[in-house]
Amino acid sequence: MEINKDNIANWLMQLQDSICSALEKADGNSKFLEEKWERAEGGGGRTRVMKDGAVIEKGGVNFSAVHGKTPEFLLRDKEHSSADKSASEFFATGVSIVIHPNSPMVPIIHMNIRYFEMTGGVKWLGGGIDLTPHYVVEDDAKYFHSELKKVCDKHHANYYTKFKKWADDYFFIAHRNETRGIGGIFFDRLNDGDGMSFEKNLSFWKEVGEAFAPIYVELIRRNKNKSFTEHHKQWQLLRRGRYVEFNLVYDKGTKFGLETNGRIESILMSLPKFASWEYNFVPEENSEEAKTLSLLKKEINWV
Amino acid sequence: MEINKDNIANWLMQLQDSICSALEKADGNSKFLEEKWERAEGGGGRTRVMKDGAVIEKGGVNFSAVHGKTPEFLLRDKEHSSADKSASEFFATGVSIVIHPNSPMVPIIHMNIRYFEMTGGVKWLGGGIDLTPHYVVEDDAKYFHSELKKVCDKHHANYYTKFKKWADDYFFIAHRNETRGIGGIFFDRLNDGDGMSFEKNLSFWKEVGEAFAPIYVELIRRNKNKSFTEHHKQWQLLRRGRYVEFNLVYDKGTKFGLETNGRIESILMSLPKFASWEYNFVPEENSEEAKTLSLLKKEINWV
Repeated sequence: MEINKDNIANWLMQLQDSICSALEKADGNSKFLEEKWERAEGGGGRTRVMKDGAVIEKGGVNFSAVHGKTPEFLLRDKEHSSADKSASEFFATGVSIVIHPNSPMVPIIHMNIRYFEMTGGVKWLGGGIDLTPHYVVEDDAKYFHSELKKVCDKHHANYYTKFKKWADDYFFIAHRNETRGIGGIFFDRLNDGDGMSFEKNLSFWKEVGEAFAPIYVELIRRNKNKSFTEHHKQWQLLRRGRYVEFNLVYDKGTKFGLETNGRIESILMSLPKFASWEYNFVPEENSEEAKTLSLLKKEINWV
Repeated sequence: MEINKDNIANWLMQLQDSICSALEKADGNSKFLEEKWERAEGGGGRTRVMKDGAVIEKGGVNFSAVHGKTPEFLLRDKEHSSADKSASEFFATGVSIVIHPNSPMVPIIHMNIRYFEMTGGVKWLGGGIDLTPHYVVEDDAKYFHSELKKVCDKHHANYYTKFKKWADDYFFIAHRNETRGIGGIFFDRLNDGDGMSFEKNLSFWKEVGEAFAPIYVELIRRNKNKSFTEHHKQWQLLRRGRYVEFNLVYDKGTKFGLETNGRIESILMSLPKFASWEYNFVPEENSEEAKTLSLLKKEINWV
């Protein structure tokens, strides 16, 4: 099949369908509701949100494919200084997922894969999957990273190391000096290089998308029946507060959405139903919360 | 008394004391707890936080006075291109307040007044007070704006109009196309001009600080005994979500704090204890919530 933007967008819509089916099955109770939307400047999307499920309190699996005049902030980029700026058009398509579970024992997960092109033959792939456990379970962290490593290793011997580091650096809440969660993989502006053609990277990128559902379904299965108390729930709300801080202060996808007049409700579906902030909260020494905090840092080798 | 940075900082500490006393009296139950902190690069502050009061769920009245090497982002500013950049030092002091009440019938309030100077004789005053009712009560909005207008009118015939517009423009959540609340006044980089000396503007600035407590105490008195339900409470949490969006995406004080290595817990004390986000929430037609939303826009003349 020819590689072009329509084929990529179609593949992403099928991925959205299959992920929604898998998550509905794992939840066992609630279904995704779909809203189609159009963007005035070109393109649109299919936002799918589940709420108040048995496992998933609030989750979104969004597809979008937008196009139009390339926004100013992308043209400022040195890489594109050769393009004819006034006439530059862009096209961007992707699937973006954030799942906030009810139980503090089930981790928050995020996945995004995206394809971007603009006038002048510029095109690239980006994406990643990262996990934000409210309580870090070391076996789960190992499982999560090992599965991502398998996907990477199939395509390039260095991808896991490189993209794991990229996730550590990207999903970092600088003002807290903590990582958002236990990381995962993150990559951007992948075209060719390192012995990989664009076509080979596209295969890798697709497998990242396909890896999401089985990994998260397994993590749900492992943790959904664990008991918890109000104490765990309050900690979950504080960790979600950190999630909000990351997404609103640092996240480039959110920034891109806001700066390209994206659909605000689709962009901010990543925010949890409930979150909390407590002034200067410090967990008790040797508590499970303190242990989790100690693991929210870069350069932990989980595999 | 000579005008210098130490005198201004001392005056601000006294203001912090008197505001905390007034708010403790209005709350009637809880007290502010103080934490003194120091900044590695110079200066420090007194953070005072009240939590779980009878009226105030979470509130901070913070004083800080920090100094050191002028941060890069301030030197990029065209206004200061004449300063010797490598040797430039800054000093900034202010009182910053955010109060999140328990009751959705009592408005959130924010006040900040700040003094800034840097090498080369640059100095300015900034500040403002703005109100974020969960439910807009028109009489209260009129009262609030009238009191601010009185303070402004005493000093300059154009200040209320000018600074009210500035607040409308500043406390605006662009991605939602709504104002954060019903505005108030906001001003920055006030030195001299418009027939006002720096000294005259300093008097105006001090009266803004002194206006805060009586205004908010009156708004508490008017609203604290109103009854409310879970329905009102859920709306309050959604409005607080918007407050979080504003503070993390747009607020310059937050940005300044993060970029000058400010004390993060003092900066983010502005975030509420609990907040909520619901996908695509639209209030019922003709409801109190819809009425409030219709009033969250610029250029409403409240006086």
